[in-house]
Amino acid sequence: MGTILVLGAGRSSASLIQYLLDNAPEYKWNVVVGDLSESAARERIGGSPFARFVSFDINNAEESSKTIRDADVVISLLPAILHPQVGKLCLTMGKHLLNASYISDEMKTFHDEAQRRGLLFLNECGLDPGIDHMSAMQIIDRIKKEGGSIRSFESFTGGLIAPETDPQNPWRYKFTWNPRNVVTAGQTTAKYLQNGQLKYIPYQQLFQRLTPVEVSGYGRYEGYANRDSLRYISTYGLNNIKTMLRGTLRNEGFCSAWNVFVQLGCCDDTYQMDDVSKMTHSSFIECFLQDHAAVRSVREKLAIALHLNPNGGEMKKLAWSGLLDDEPVGLQGGTPAQILEHILSKKWKLQEQDRDLVVMWHRFYYQLNGTLRQIQASLVAKGENATFTAMAKTVGLPLAIAAKLLITGQLTLRGVQVPIAPEIYAPVLSELKSKGIELIQRDVE
Amino acid sequence: MGTILVLGAGRSSASLIQYLLDNAPEYKWNVVVGDLSESAARERIGGSPFARFVSFDINNAEESSKTIRDADVVISLLPAILHPQVGKLCLTMGKHLLNASYISDEMKTFHDEAQRRGLLFLNECGLDPGIDHMSAMQIIDRIKKEGGSIRSFESFTGGLIAPETDPQNPWRYKFTWNPRNVVTAGQTTAKYLQNGQLKYIPYQQLFQRLTPVEVSGYGRYEGYANRDSLRYISTYGLNNIKTMLRGTLRNEGFCSAWNVFVQLGCCDDTYQMDDVSKMTHSSFIECFLQDHAAVRSVREKLAIALHLNPNGGEMKKLAWSGLLDDEPVGLQGGTPAQILEHILSKKWKLQEQDRDLVVMWHRFYYQLNGTLRQIQASLVAKGENATFTAMAKTVGLPLAIAAKLLITGQLTLRGVQVPIAPEIYAPVLSELKSKGIELIQRDVE
Repeated sequence: MGTILVLGAGRSSASLIQYLLDNAPEYKWNVVVGDLSESAARERIGGSPFARFVSFDINNAEESSKTIRDADVVISLLPAILHPQVGKLCLTMGKHLLNASYISDEMKTFHDEAQRRGLLFLNECGLDPGIDHMSAMQIIDRIKKEGGSIRSFESFTGGLIAPETDPQNPWRYKFTWNPRNVVTAGQTTAKYLQNGQLKYIPYQQLFQRLTPVEVSGYGRYEGYANRDSLRYISTYGLNNIKTMLRGTLRNEGFCSAWNVFVQLGCCDDTYQMDDVSKMTHSSFIECFLQDHAAVRSVREKLAIALHLNPNGGEMKKLAWSGLLDDEPVGLQGGTPAQILEHILSKKWKLQEQDRDLVVMWHRFYYQLNGTLRQIQASLVAKGENATFTAMAKTVGLPLAIAAKLLITGQLTLRGVQVPIAPEIYAPVLSELKSKGIELIQRDVE
Repeated sequence: MGTILVLGAGRSSASLIQYLLDNAPEYKWNVVVGDLSESAARERIGGSPFARFVSFDINNAEESSKTIRDADVVISLLPAILHPQVGKLCLTMGKHLLNASYISDEMKTFHDEAQRRGLLFLNECGLDPGIDHMSAMQIIDRIKKEGGSIRSFESFTGGLIAPETDPQNPWRYKFTWNPRNVVTAGQTTAKYLQNGQLKYIPYQQLFQRLTPVEVSGYGRYEGYANRDSLRYISTYGLNNIKTMLRGTLRNEGFCSAWNVFVQLGCCDDTYQMDDVSKMTHSSFIECFLQDHAAVRSVREKLAIALHLNPNGGEMKKLAWSGLLDDEPVGLQGGTPAQILEHILSKKWKLQEQDRDLVVMWHRFYYQLNGTLRQIQASLVAKGENATFTAMAKTVGLPLAIAAKLLITGQLTLRGVQVPIAPEIYAPVLSELKSKGIELIQRDVE
């Protein structure tokens, strides 16, 4: 029994809502899907008699309050920046809140009040952050129980494309997630711990400071650092750790090509470019390149500017994306980042027949009985189709399962939380495993 | 007859105030120096009977109004960001305003009202912007009068040190101007015109996209682009121009070494670093470098990270600045930019015996009678001592001379202006020349 309100019917909601609808008859749930767009919500709900649409606009305080008042649990897929606002309403109305966004400082301030009112505000419960926390904590708790002491933890996750998808695409990448966030990723300085020393990586170095990753049976990847890895040292209880690094995973060769955009300034989202309506793909790139007498082609100018092989992997990827072509951009204005996103979308938009691939990889070094040991764990999840993508499954199912645990009384944790307690991670990982989403662990000699 | 109010008695005010005091007896001026610091103002005023100090705090609206009401002309050396506020007060009180800052959008909105009230708000009337505008316009007007058509204009200015100052200093540079601005220079994307195409240079490319400059009798320099060069195309009336680039001048070799700081992220002013109290110069640099097994020295790590010659010019400059040493930084906290400024100041602070050097260089290409011609113009000004620096002279004297022209009725221009009209530039440049501050022009074959 209970009413579950899902806020946001966008592309990450498909598996979440499907899970709720599948389980609604057994648990007698009412599923309410709130979105600005009725058609998006109706597509998710289909003909289910257990679900209904509600028009939801967080900026309409009165209607939002009413919608939240009628729910027992709120699952929000709204943009991260809106979560403090949703949190406030849930606090006022006395409702649980689950979401997959990074916990904000404002959200943290709700902890005491949520606890006092017997509410769970569970954050970072999707893929990354989410499954990464849960799977890491499961391993950490086991190693500690065995008497081991963890010295190093590195973790990378990426939303990629399946090997059979778009085999000509040399990037091995398409937009399986918010394209804007992909284009502007990494612009705040990353911070991590290496051999006991605090390290900072500015944007201009980020795509050159890579960790090589191999997942047996799948291939070679590379990871770049993401935000502040240090905040998870205390969250994970790893106070004696010497190396702690979290980041994003891409196929081998992606980062050195993406670095071309970073170095040229193509990912800048802070100013509007001039004369965009007259721009072609190649003239967009030329805006960031110095002219040289007797050098005519963009390819040559680019090779000179960034010391690239004119026929190397970076140039091949740029050429495949049409960036050396005279094709009109097709926008009337925009920042460099908006224009780059628009150009890349022409080839990187996920098509109906495409399958995405989520890859997660952890590496631990730990001291046990006087020897240093290594353990690696990896998860590979493939999308079923363009709706039930690997991204939708791995982001949505942890939230859906957590909601089920909460509503059926199996989750007693309260306050503002992230999913690091066995009470959450054990049942969630177990049910994910039954759906084929599982980290494979191996000891490395 | 008249009262001239000088706001700000900092290091750029020495020559300005001296000029006003020198001329006060002849013109019967009262010179009022307003500053937060009485001692700074008293140092400038000395024992002159024509000058007095007034305590001035722009945030104290009542007192500021009163001080400005008593003046005829206000010369402001306050930080650029305060000039709209000063402008508003001058507008209300009906006073002329002269300053050396880049004209802001808000300042521009005062134009009609200033004109209506018969006031001159003259901006960008220092060195750069200032003498660069005036000297360029003198050449532009002459070429146009001869029937020439200007195709290209490049202009670079820098505040450097004299050849005999600190001969061991491989940077050939010290802080002769606001150190904070030096450390954070260039962080907004530069924009210029090259061969008819709009070009953008992001920060990470800025110190690699250099224009070589030679000033005969002085040596070799290099220029990097500065802000938006395009805004001066219409200001200068150069509507058919194909190349337009303004920038900052440094001694040859400076930029590739400074680029090390840029690439590492040492000039970032957006976040506070951790554990600053325990930092040494070299551990500050190590924060931005990846650890490698078996590589121990900062020098080696740095060489690997940025593909530098371990004994090359960049490394020599960094080593001279003490950045590879274990010396404690000596700060309790700070952003990377603040820490870098603090470390560099230990060697780059201008000493009593040091002489600074201002170098300005213009290059024009123009079409005349069917042939493309080139003209170069350069100015070199040397400081007299640590007070009457070249910077203080070249920033302050144009303002002082403009004030004299205005107060003696020789300047009839009104409204919000920059110094591009012959009425201003001819007498200012002429008087500067009499003081040894002059651009030498030469036709280049």
